[in-house]
Amino acid sequence: MLMTDIILQKRAGAPLSSDAIRFWIDGVVSGAIPDYQSAALLMAICWRGMDARETAELTMAMTHSGAVVDLSAIPGTKVDKHSTGGVGDTTTLIVAPVVASCGVPVAKMSGRGLGHTGGTLDKLESLSGVSVERSVDELIAMVNGGGIAVIGQTGDLVPADRALYALRDVTGTVESLPLIASSIMSKKIAAGSDAIVLDVKTGSGAFMKTPDEAFALAAQMVEIGRMVGRKTVAIVTDMNQPLGMKIGNQLEVQEAIEALDGRLSMDDPLIAVSRTLAVKMLILGGAAHDESEAARLFDESIASGAAKDKLRTLIDVLGGDGSIVDRPESLAQVKRLIPLPSPSDGTIAAMDALRIGASAQMLGAGRAQKTDTIDPAVGLVMGVRTGDTVTKGQTLVTLCVNDESRLDEALRCLEGAFDIRAAIGPIAPMVYGEVDENGIKRCDK
Amino acid sequence: MLMTDIILQKRAGAPLSSDAIRFWIDGVVSGAIPDYQSAALLMAICWRGMDARETAELTMAMTHSGAVVDLSAIPGTKVDKHSTGGVGDTTTLIVAPVVASCGVPVAKMSGRGLGHTGGTLDKLESLSGVSVERSVDELIAMVNGGGIAVIGQTGDLVPADRALYALRDVTGTVESLPLIASSIMSKKIAAGSDAIVLDVKTGSGAFMKTPDEAFALAAQMVEIGRMVGRKTVAIVTDMNQPLGMKIGNQLEVQEAIEALDGRLSMDDPLIAVSRTLAVKMLILGGAAHDESEAARLFDESIASGAAKDKLRTLIDVLGGDGSIVDRPESLAQVKRLIPLPSPSDGTIAAMDALRIGASAQMLGAGRAQKTDTIDPAVGLVMGVRTGDTVTKGQTLVTLCVNDESRLDEALRCLEGAFDIRAAIGPIAPMVYGEVDENGIKRCDK
Repeated sequence: MLMTDIILQKRAGAPLSSDAIRFWIDGVVSGAIPDYQSAALLMAICWRGMDARETAELTMAMTHSGAVVDLSAIPGTKVDKHSTGGVGDTTTLIVAPVVASCGVPVAKMSGRGLGHTGGTLDKLESLSGVSVERSVDELIAMVNGGGIAVIGQTGDLVPADRALYALRDVTGTVESLPLIASSIMSKKIAAGSDAIVLDVKTGSGAFMKTPDEAFALAAQMVEIGRMVGRKTVAIVTDMNQPLGMKIGNQLEVQEAIEALDGRLSMDDPLIAVSRTLAVKMLILGGAAHDESEAARLFDESIASGAAKDKLRTLIDVLGGDGSIVDRPESLAQVKRLIPLPSPSDGTIAAMDALRIGASAQMLGAGRAQKTDTIDPAVGLVMGVRTGDTVTKGQTLVTLCVNDESRLDEALRCLEGAFDIRAAIGPIAPMVYGEVDENGIKRCDK
Repeated sequence: MLMTDIILQKRAGAPLSSDAIRFWIDGVVSGAIPDYQSAALLMAICWRGMDARETAELTMAMTHSGAVVDLSAIPGTKVDKHSTGGVGDTTTLIVAPVVASCGVPVAKMSGRGLGHTGGTLDKLESLSGVSVERSVDELIAMVNGGGIAVIGQTGDLVPADRALYALRDVTGTVESLPLIASSIMSKKIAAGSDAIVLDVKTGSGAFMKTPDEAFALAAQMVEIGRMVGRKTVAIVTDMNQPLGMKIGNQLEVQEAIEALDGRLSMDDPLIAVSRTLAVKMLILGGAAHDESEAARLFDESIASGAAKDKLRTLIDVLGGDGSIVDRPESLAQVKRLIPLPSPSDGTIAAMDALRIGASAQMLGAGRAQKTDTIDPAVGLVMGVRTGDTVTKGQTLVTLCVNDESRLDEALRCLEGAFDIRAAIGPIAPMVYGEVDENGIKRCDK
């Protein structure tokens, strides 16, 4: 088989055979296929797309390019959860303890964050003593002990995705639904769970700018799950403003603790999205028969303190001090708090979540490059949400700062991040709909 | 400027600025831009195309990526000629002597052939003593002495095209009109001539399979010439069967000598195409005012023996023995002549020129790889042309063989190369039309 023929075939718009896809992915991992040929094929895929069969086969070829985690030593249905990423997206630290407290084992591997804010791993590591670099054997032991563990993705998982993602990043081939879908799903499948709940974000702070794009990506991933035999459900949620009110690593842990402590209103967006995700996971994990039962479990788990106890367990088992869940106010201590005042009276018509995320990153909450270090304490605390009326001088957001040399740049990121008007139109819903094997259900149109 | 941004821009279908094009080509030559980024951009160009401005700017960026030959030391208008390549395409060895004998200086640089048969350089080098690896100073001296020289392209010409062509070859990005047009035109412009006549082949033995594709390529190249100030004329000619009756290096020299000796009929396809090319060159070179005057010059140059004398001069000046033009029968002496008999009575409805070319290559007349050596004497002598009626057993083609170990493979190439039927439709014309600054003139529809 010649790589040039494979490129020419895709260039002509023809589907690639499973042999051709495996030949490519094997060659990517072995180094037998040079990057320039992969780059040409990636662009041809951006051009011509891939059908459902090709996308599923690409996913499985990538999954099997490295180790595949075997979680069968953990009894029960293991349900994984993945978010396509956004600002103030603290759902894992809420959903995982809730689901675990309801008896569904949570054995989760996460990637590290690169971008506006840290990932779940960075948030956990912001707690002193916590270490997430664990082996699969440790993961299994932790889950069989306390029912919950979240660790870093081990280095031998999906090497093909690592190589291709690095190449896509520098060849203008990141944006492609089959490439994005297969990248996410290959990692989730290799991580060994039985079922997958996906949170596909849409809006100014998300990779998918429009709901239509988000639903298309969600549908592709659900279809991959169906074709490879992993039950997959996706919800599409709003990322036109930060999901939580706190952005930054310890700040987000703090807000998760507050949420599990029952201190947030049940119609708070962070709670609303977390509950929707948990409901899907509880049903897939067999802990609930239907949505109303699952929602009741979610509410009870928080009301009883069971979920908060699971977060305590998680922090303890990772080497940290779980008692932090009883004193979240001790987190995120910084040198200076700088309020950003509203320049005028009016109503928040929209926010630019990406600029807000970039501001937090600038303060040290996220990495611009893989080698950057994160300041666990810094970040932003939002003072308003879209739709709120504000008076001139009212605090829109508070910057939590340690390194003042970064303040100017962080403030510059926030310029124009708040669109304040006299009158506003309808506000986007928090949950746009869901996709499962029965198809797409949208509540936004 | 970031290469990724340039790729994304072309991916989105936007035209590239001249700065972006120069940045890319400079980076290709310096090595600052890795091959994988160029490969992605090349595929994006195959997808989105390039407009006339971009194509002209790409051409000039490639032209100036290396040395540009200065032929101003040669008085008069220097007219170059380029063929997109075909089987039995011996026109240069006919046209160049004719044009030179009419007083238009011929200072031509050729590339080496890779494919079914050798290029003009290989044909010249098939004559003992001839050496085509010459400097530009030698070229100028030869032309100012005898009015004619054909040498190999010097190594410092258009390094960007060399690098990009090698990359296109292995990334499925060869087929792209702007990339093909800019590759050809950058080399012609760098070679220093004042005007360019292009012979764009179409048919089974050509890169452009249909006349429509050939005219589109011709139009792009003429437009590049217009935009960069080099008068360019293209003719589109047939390559559904070998142009000459002889295929192979010494065989083609032999046929060129026969043509210049007046031994071929004036409506022979090789003569017809050569005359059309020469007419354009004579007008562009200022030796004739119109087509009928130029055609008369062509005929007179052959009838008087002046053209044959110029070929003698060319061979002498390159170090060979020009007296070979008086005894062409001494060329192409081989061990065995193997006739291929017609399997049936009928009429030649079509030939597969590519299979015929491949057969000659298999005998040793052309290179499969750059490092292959050519046997100057071997090749094919055609016994028929499309439209001829044949009887069973009549010779279709004679194989001129030295290395009999290659004979079986060469015969296998010829299987199905002749389509013999009871009745046939109309035969393709030899010249489909021409393209100049006034537009496209087609005589095929």
